[in-house]
Amino acid sequence: MSDVYAARRARLRDRCAAAGNAAALVSRPANVRYLAGGALPGAVLLLGPDEDTLLCPRTPVGAADGRLDERLRLIVLPTATGDPAVAAAGILVRSGVESLAVEEHHLTVARHRAIGSVAPRLRLADLGCAVEQQRIVKDEEEIGCLRIAAEIADQALGELLESILVGRTERHLALELERRLVDHGAAGPAFPTNVATGPNSGRYGHHPSDRRVEEGDFLTVSLGADYRGYRCLIGRTFVIGSSPADWQIELYELVFSAQRAGREALVPSAGYRDVDRAARQPLEAAGYAEGLPPRTGHGVGLEIDEDPQLAPAAMGKLDACVPVTVGPGVHLPGRGGVRIDDTLVVRPEADGGPELLTITTKELLAL
Amino acid sequence: MSDVYAARRARLRDRCAAAGNAAALVSRPANVRYLAGGALPGAVLLLGPDEDTLLCPRTPVGAADGRLDERLRLIVLPTATGDPAVAAAGILVRSGVESLAVEEHHLTVARHRAIGSVAPRLRLADLGCAVEQQRIVKDEEEIGCLRIAAEIADQALGELLESILVGRTERHLALELERRLVDHGAAGPAFPTNVATGPNSGRYGHHPSDRRVEEGDFLTVSLGADYRGYRCLIGRTFVIGSSPADWQIELYELVFSAQRAGREALVPSAGYRDVDRAARQPLEAAGYAEGLPPRTGHGVGLEIDEDPQLAPAAMGKLDACVPVTVGPGVHLPGRGGVRIDDTLVVRPEADGGPELLTITTKELLAL
Repeated sequence: MSDVYAARRARLRDRCAAAGNAAALVSRPANVRYLAGGALPGAVLLLGPDEDTLLCPRTPVGAADGRLDERLRLIVLPTATGDPAVAAAGILVRSGVESLAVEEHHLTVARHRAIGSVAPRLRLADLGCAVEQQRIVKDEEEIGCLRIAAEIADQALGELLESILVGRTERHLALELERRLVDHGAAGPAFPTNVATGPNSGRYGHHPSDRRVEEGDFLTVSLGADYRGYRCLIGRTFVIGSSPADWQIELYELVFSAQRAGREALVPSAGYRDVDRAARQPLEAAGYAEGLPPRTGHGVGLEIDEDPQLAPAAMGKLDACVPVTVGPGVHLPGRGGVRIDDTLVVRPEADGGPELLTITTKELLAL
Repeated sequence: MSDVYAARRARLRDRCAAAGNAAALVSRPANVRYLAGGALPGAVLLLGPDEDTLLCPRTPVGAADGRLDERLRLIVLPTATGDPAVAAAGILVRSGVESLAVEEHHLTVARHRAIGSVAPRLRLADLGCAVEQQRIVKDEEEIGCLRIAAEIADQALGELLESILVGRTERHLALELERRLVDHGAAGPAFPTNVATGPNSGRYGHHPSDRRVEEGDFLTVSLGADYRGYRCLIGRTFVIGSSPADWQIELYELVFSAQRAGREALVPSAGYRDVDRAARQPLEAAGYAEGLPPRTGHGVGLEIDEDPQLAPAAMGKLDACVPVTVGPGVHLPGRGGVRIDDTLVVRPEADGGPELLTITTKELLAL
């Protein structure tokens, strides 16, 4: 694994050098993890000029589970020393480096200024989202972690479906799912598990409430596992009771066909906006243009919400080996709604097309 | 409640005006919540010059539960519009305001620059931690929320102690506690619940693992509830089995006496560092100077970790109505350790001294 991290850092270092920066300071936690391995709360990674240094405010957790790249020079700062980013700037001053690229979209103004005070002659440039861009296309090791994360989420969801649901609250079901994720080997939930019932079902931005599951409800569930830092997402909608109402079947079939259209649009070099349009158009055509979420999917990886964005105004095209979610939904105020969400990996048609990671059935189950 | 929020904003506006700034932009989420009510992910609050405006990236959640201050002018931005902080700067440009104080410790360099581009003639100053400082002393409504949060945590912990613990993993116990917090009315855990057993017990920075509780273990538990945004903390250590070993009794009594000394030092106008010293000194005197956590307590409120810091180098003195944690601990590598943590409110001696919010017993229980 160490080779992987070193190769990622080498790629970033080349990009920095091409922009005329002798060194780079990575502070965004998921970016640090991507380049160094291990989970390192508060750590920053200093790349170059001669060696790569990880500066941690405390002994890194990743070191314990053997995933931290041991080639890195590791500096654990005494607790009272303050910001590791400032300590990193101090190292550069002593080594005579003249320019440093920082993550301006992550560093606060105050931290940026503190770096400037310690190193007044250091020219500070913007690294931009270079690491985030590097993270979009995954290697097979990363996809392997996502595949396991998706399996765990499928298992947790499958077990829930076998239990009695009527009378239980959204909050309880959400906590139960999180417990099951951990049971099956997740480091934790990939994001706060969402459960919505009846009129709440399918509503964008809903948080689990004390509402209890009732006969005849739609039940929407959205969950994911964190496995070795990699996060997936699955969303499903069920109906409670023996037979769904006509409007429920109709709405479900509509969202299902929209989601399928989105999945089928996942081919290398498809535009991000084209995937969004494929999933959005059937819903708009059915008269639900208003109230649709601003996007129908997004990338996943070390963060549950990363680039690319599958949205009407998104620029860019899909590559192979990019994992994304596809999850359109419709919510009818006062009645409820449907959301169906999968995590898939973009693959060339020659390799069988998009690889579905979250395999729980998308039939409309009556529970 | 609206009066409370308006009064808080008036106080901040006065402070800004005194520093020569016509307007202030508050972006740190807990600060926005403190001044506007409600939970408003991604929202920013623009104070003055004429009216106060809340700019939200989506319909605010707090509006639904009735706690959002309805005197505020509310702007819900269309999803594609981008950063609410930049939209706020646009408002100032149109109204001819010349200076704006921003939270440089929260705004990223990129956001700060985007504000500058939209409003090149606007002089940007630093609001610093003005709101955080205002938040240190709580009103009785806030303390009431913390009191309920502490009751919830006490109940969750009490129920766990009645269940069978041997053979269960740290992770499971942590999840079970979180479920019970929600059962008793918490919006959620105040922070990730921590459970540590055997050699992990009492270790600073431990995360729940798959280790199972065994006979003879120390078991340390640290949890808290979020009630209406207010967060408390309780930490306790127990011993598993019928009778603790001598070293366990000795270590427990030592940490207990240190924690009591810290609690007793909580009087108005006591120095932050003096409280820390009171709790730290007994542990140092017993030979545990090395490996002690960098602080023995901290403020709690809308965040689980806020000012003041009770640490050796902390400057400042306690006021009445400041809720803090007092939680020293000792960890013996390979054997385990003890941590005892309470949330208390500083009160004058005339009012009975510090008010203990977390009332679970601190006797050494053998479970």
